[in-house]
This record gives sequence, structure tokens and C-alpha cells, in this order.
Amino acid sequence: MSGSRVVIVGGGFGGLYAARALGGAPVEVTVVDRTNHHVFQPLLYQVATASLSPSQIAYPIRGVLRRQRNTRVALAVVAGVDVAGRRVVLRDGALPYDFLILAAGARHSYFAHPEWEARAPGLKTLDDALTIRDRILLAFERAELEPDADRRRALLTFVVVGGGPTGVELAGAIGEIACKVMTRDFRRIDTRATRTILVEAGPRILPAFPPRLAAEAERSLERLCVEVRTGEAVTRLENGTVWLGTRPVPAGTVLWAAGVAPSPIARSLGVPLDRLGRVVVNADLTVPGHPEVFVIGDLAALAGRDGRPLPGLAPVAIQEGEHAARNVLRAVRGEAPRPFRYRDRGTMATIGRAAAVVDLGHLRLAGYPAWLLWCFIHILWLIGFRNRFLVMMEWAWAYLRFERSARLIVRGGDDVTMAFRSPPG
Amino acid sequence: MSGSRVVIVGGGFGGLYAARALGGAPVEVTVVDRTNHHVFQPLLYQVATASLSPSQIAYPIRGVLRRQRNTRVALAVVAGVDVAGRRVVLRDGALPYDFLILAAGARHSYFAHPEWEARAPGLKTLDDALTIRDRILLAFERAELEPDADRRRALLTFVVVGGGPTGVELAGAIGEIACKVMTRDFRRIDTRATRTILVEAGPRILPAFPPRLAAEAERSLERLCVEVRTGEAVTRLENGTVWLGTRPVPAGTVLWAAGVAPSPIARSLGVPLDRLGRVVVNADLTVPGHPEVFVIGDLAALAGRDGRPLPGLAPVAIQEGEHAARNVLRAVRGEAPRPFRYRDRGTMATIGRAAAVVDLGHLRLAGYPAWLLWCFIHILWLIGFRNRFLVMMEWAWAYLRFERSARLIVRGGDDVTMAFRSPPG
Repeated sequence: MSGSRVVIVGGGFGGLYAARALGGAPVEVTVVDRTNHHVFQPLLYQVATASLSPSQIAYPIRGVLRRQRNTRVALAVVAGVDVAGRRVVLRDGALPYDFLILAAGARHSYFAHPEWEARAPGLKTLDDALTIRDRILLAFERAELEPDADRRRALLTFVVVGGGPTGVELAGAIGEIACKVMTRDFRRIDTRATRTILVEAGPRILPAFPPRLAAEAERSLERLCVEVRTGEAVTRLENGTVWLGTRPVPAGTVLWAAGVAPSPIARSLGVPLDRLGRVVVNADLTVPGHPEVFVIGDLAALAGRDGRPLPGLAPVAIQEGEHAARNVLRAVRGEAPRPFRYRDRGTMATIGRAAAVVDLGHLRLAGYPAWLLWCFIHILWLIGFRNRFLVMMEWAWAYLRFERSARLIVRGGDDVTMAFRSPPG
Repeated sequence: MSGSRVVIVGGGFGGLYAARALGGAPVEVTVVDRTNHHVFQPLLYQVATASLSPSQIAYPIRGVLRRQRNTRVALAVVAGVDVAGRRVVLRDGALPYDFLILAAGARHSYFAHPEWEARAPGLKTLDDALTIRDRILLAFERAELEPDADRRRALLTFVVVGGGPTGVELAGAIGEIACKVMTRDFRRIDTRATRTILVEAGPRILPAFPPRLAAEAERSLERLCVEVRTGEAVTRLENGTVWLGTRPVPAGTVLWAAGVAPSPIARSLGVPLDRLGRVVVNADLTVPGHPEVFVIGDLAALAGRDGRPLPGLAPVAIQEGEHAARNVLRAVRGEAPRPFRYRDRGTMATIGRAAAVVDLGHLRLAGYPAWLLWCFIHILWLIGFRNRFLVMMEWAWAYLRFERSARLIVRGGDDVTMAFRSPPG
């Protein structure tokens, strides 16, 4: 096969759906990612809170694309794009392309405080999720051994920064673990005394949802012992203490779910970026002056039909990926590209084990019915993932037994797991 | 409850079965471990070779002991034992005891070369298994991107040092991945060209098994493209090269399954150790001069009925744990302790997906029947583990689909996964 070379940067939803749409087409496809797996991001918070294990929501990119003989996969770090030379610059080498689909995604933004990242990890990758899982589980373990009551209270205080869907899901899941799941596990501490604080600088949580659903979500969170603090911002972050405005709150664990920082690869394109650092794309998803370069997903800034920017959600990335792939094939055939139109099928967020909010436009649900719908849609969506059936079994089991199946501290802080290797003396 | 205080160091097979045997008894039990989970070690190599994920073979110690109201669990690093003061010294604090059951286990021994550990990881913990999994998967990824044929060949060479059950199982599983499982995943490399070398310094592999079964195992390994090299020892280990005798073999991945180094906690007891560093225990599993201190599992040196030392196997640790617990309860009741007798029910090792060797004394099997028996016994043995059914499902699925379910590089070498966080420029 010696057709046009298409390089896809990123194996997230956008990149993977673009690659699949090019399967069997007369082009040579290369997918580059810095990890070897695709992550089903909507369930990442369940790994972070020990409900699911990594292999249940992640799958090797090679495995997904194994049968596409025109597609190869490279595990490599992309340093930038040489737009004039039409090649993707790797940390070690380069990949020439005729068409580029850039789907490198985003991480959390710590605004003017990059040093906060180490103290308040965000949740974008499997590695992040395992870091957060270890921190949450270790906080309870340390509290159990802590003789001082004040320090114990601080260890049992969890602050989640950012009231969007990720923050709501994380806070709800932590509240649920503490209030309902782990109550019988410890002897000295009462995990029900755990404080989980969800901080949102804006006037309400879930700003992308209708106010009624956001209010429902807030009530569901409160039933899971989560304190919701709107209109408060983090002003300072030290080890063991987070400042909300001028007030210090001793907290052993701070998690970050606020702000978005697009991949720095965007800057190397030399095209206009928006205020957040995303690439401002044409209606056909190409960048100005380069009809061979497509940018999709969280890295692209594009307005929807209502003039508001399209949100950083999996359905947007998927539809853009498929559209970019079709535009590549149109260009190969000498046809004109078509503009992208997002078909909004709704948004949803889940709060703990049996509550959620769902906004499908014409249908707005909260509580248990919304949660059932959430489960149903997410399990359907796992189609193509081999482990859909196994995840369903695992969920059913966890639901019935009210257990956390993946409550393992694997890396556990070097102080704990590494101690054996360098014995004293 | 204010009975005698029993401290158990280690949550492996020995420690956990000792703790369970003390459930409901009129004693206060504390289990100390540096990790929060018990690992089903006989299946650890399946995590290392991406067949199972960590949560399928590990379970939180708190979860196992949750219903034992007389038992608490402490996640802590033990620095040593103060035998005279009757307390376990933690890195941060101390635990006083009336009875101690020391089950701190062993790691691999690198003999006179502790610096080899970083170059050739061993397989004792979940953390080890994930390290090995990442290295194996990354070797194939790097080979796929490597333009130089010699370096590619070195990256596709795996050396497993040590021909005991762990080495045999590891080498067989690597050979199987390369020869059978991943053949369709890559475009540039042919994974069937992978060299897997099993090195054993002694005259044959599986010295604890009868010669006929060891020979069968060797034939099974060769069918999985594994080269078996007996009578050869590793004399030097550099990055990228392992010396077998005087001959250098370029090898990207070296794994260590030779030798045993008991926990250094043993030394703090101040009692005689054997040549390997294990505590020489009395027939009742106590240490000389201290009827309140029991040592069990891989840390204990005790001769079986035939005069040969008991092997470092799970069944030995389990039976010793239960026996030590019963002797503690006898002492509490003012009764004399009883000597321990090991009931040998057989040993087994598995080679890849459909071959194994089983030695039950009166029944010796090899090949497919042995493998079926191995599966059956290990699934039965998982009783008490909540995920027995799920593991069975996962195995059945993997067997039918010939897939690796957990083929994720999560930590993936800092150079790969961390790159995004500190972008160039």
C-alpha cells in the first residue's frame, strides 16, 4: 500500500475514531501516542476511586487497530510539528506526513501556579487515576495510625477543586467511599467523619447543565456527606493546607478538576490560538493556510451552531475525528472538504452509586432514573471494548456487595513499598 | 476485648492464615504490612506477563479481615523487633506484643551483586509484577521503532535467570506472548523472532521436581520458542548485555528468578540464622529462648520429616500460619505447644497456556492434563477471594480469544508518560 501518509497524533477518542474511519482506505495511517493504551475517560474517576481497575477502562491501541492492515502504531513522545516540512517531530526521530490529524488533547490548568500540580493532582490519564487512588487510600491508612486528633481530622479532609462533571463525580465517589463503603474497614477512625469539600469558584456547580439539575446534583452530593462550596476560590496551596479565599483549611488530600491546558504541541503549529491555548480551526477542522493539517478534540477551538464554543467532551472528539478522516479521504479523491457540524446528544454526570443528572435536551432527569440511564448508556458505549461484559459483571457485583474491587495501593509512596529493598543497616 | 496482644508481621499467606485462625479468639490481633493488600503469589507471573490485572490476584488485607472484630490492620514499615522489650519497632512508632508471629517473607537474592537488582528485576510483589510488565511491553514497542537490526534483535531478547517454578512460568509466558499472542500487533517486527532464554546454573530446570517432569517442562518450553540453557551462570550484567560464563549476550530485558533473600528483620531477633539468612526455628515454630515469638513461611528454616528443609511455597506458609496461631491459643490457655508437621499435597508449575507439570507424589502429570488440573486447583484455591468467578471468566475469555487483557503500560518509563507534564520550552 503506497497511498498518502496520514499521521494521527493522540490515541484518545478523537484520534482513535479518526484511525478507525481510515481503516481499509487507500492511505497509510500512523497513530502516535505517548502511552500504549486508549482510555475510556468518562469512567476514569471510577479508577481514581477504586471502583474499577485500569484494564477495565483501558485497552492497548495496537489491539484496537490490529486488524487494520494499513495502520501502524508508534509509542513515542511528540515534540512538535514542522508544518513547513510536513513532518511530526518526535523526541527521537520524525514522521513525515501528507495529512496530519492532531488530537493531542489537554491536561488540567493550574493557571498561574504550575507548582500546585504536585500537591493537587489532576485526572486525565490512567497514571493520574492511580496516583489519586493511592493518595485517597493512603490518607485513610495514615489517619488510622495517627494518634493526634487534629492531624487525624486533616488526613480525613478531602478537597476537590472545580465543580464541573469531573469534580462532581470525584467528590461524590469519595463521599460515597467514606460514608458508605469503608465504614467497617477501620478500628480507630470512623470514616463517616470524613469531610469531602467540593470547591467551585463560580456561582454554582455544573455550569454547563440547567440550574434545576445542578441543584439536584448538589442535594445528591450532600446526601453523600459532601460539602459544596460555591463562589470560593483556592488562593494558596501548601502541603497539608488549602486556602479558600483567606481561610486556611487543613486537608491531607487536594484534587484538581479545574481549568484546561491544551497540549503545548499546539504552539508549534504557528497558527492563531484562542485565549486558553487551543487551535482556532476552520469549519472543516483544518488550520488556516494548511488544508492538510486537521486539529480535533480538546485541542481545537470551534464554535457550535449556537455560537458557543464546543465543549471538551468525548462525543465532540469522536464526531470530529470521524469528520476529519472523511475530509482526508475527500482530499485524496480530489473532492472539496465539508464543514463539521456537532450533533449534541446530551450530557450527563453521575454522583456516587445511585444518583446522576442527565440532560438530553428534551429529557432532563436526576436521581436514580438518571443513574440507571447513565449506566445503560455507558455500558452500550463500551461496545468495541472487549471487556464490556466483564465490566458489567464487576459493576453488578460491586453494586450488590457494596465493595470496592480495586482498592489496592500498588505504588503506595516510596516510603512504604520501597522500604524492603533498602533495609536499614 | 482485653486479651493477649498478638502482632503478626506480614500479610502474605502465612500472616493472613494466622490472622484468620485467630478470628473470634480472646486475643487482640494486629496485622502489620508495608502494603495494603494480600497477593495471591502463585499467579503473580500472570500479572507480570499481562494476562491478569492486579485487582484479580490481590485483595485489601482490611477487606479480608473486616469481619474479625478482634483484629486491626496497620499499614506500616517494620524496622525490626525488640525481643527483650517485646515490641515491634516501626519506622514511626512501635507495637507492643505478648505474642509475635513473624511472617515477613523473602525477596530474591542477587548474591554478591545487589547492584543487579535495578537491571534485572525480581518478582515478589505486585509492584515488581507491574515493573516487569512495563519492561516486557516496552521492549516490543521500542523494537518496533528501532531502525538498527542489531539493536532490534537485542531488544527482542529476553533472559530469565533461574530455572525454578517462577523462572519456568515467566519464560513460558514470555515465549507464549511473543510466539502466539502478539504476532498480529506489530508491522515492522515479527514477534516470533523473539529470543527467550531461560538460564539455570544447575544441571537441570525444576530441580525440586522429578527428572521426567522437568524434561517434559523443557520440551514444552521449547515449543514456546524458549531456549533452555542449563549449567550456565550469569557472571556479569550491564545495561543491554548479560554475560553467560564468558560469553556476552545482548539482551534488552533481563528478569531475575534465582536465589532467596529473607527479610532483614530476621537479623534483629538476635537468634541463629541459617546460611541463607532464615531463622532456625524450633519444632513448634518458636525461636530458641522465646516461646512467645513465632517465625513462619519463607523467613523460617525448618526441616521436614525427610530431613530436607521445607520449601518456600504457599502451602508451607499457610500450614505454618495456622499452626502458629493454634500454638498461641494453646499458650493463652496454659497448654503446651505442639510441633509442626507439614502435609505435602504436591507441587506444580505451568508453562504457557496449555501445558504444566504436576507432582502430587502418587500422581505425576505433564502437558495438557496437568494444565487443566493446575487451573482447577488454582481456581478452587481462590476460595475466599471474592473475584474467583471473575478471574475464571477472564481466563476463559483470554483462552478463547487468545488475548492479553491487561497489556497496559501504565508507568511506562518516566521518559514516556511524564513527557507531557514538562513540555519542552
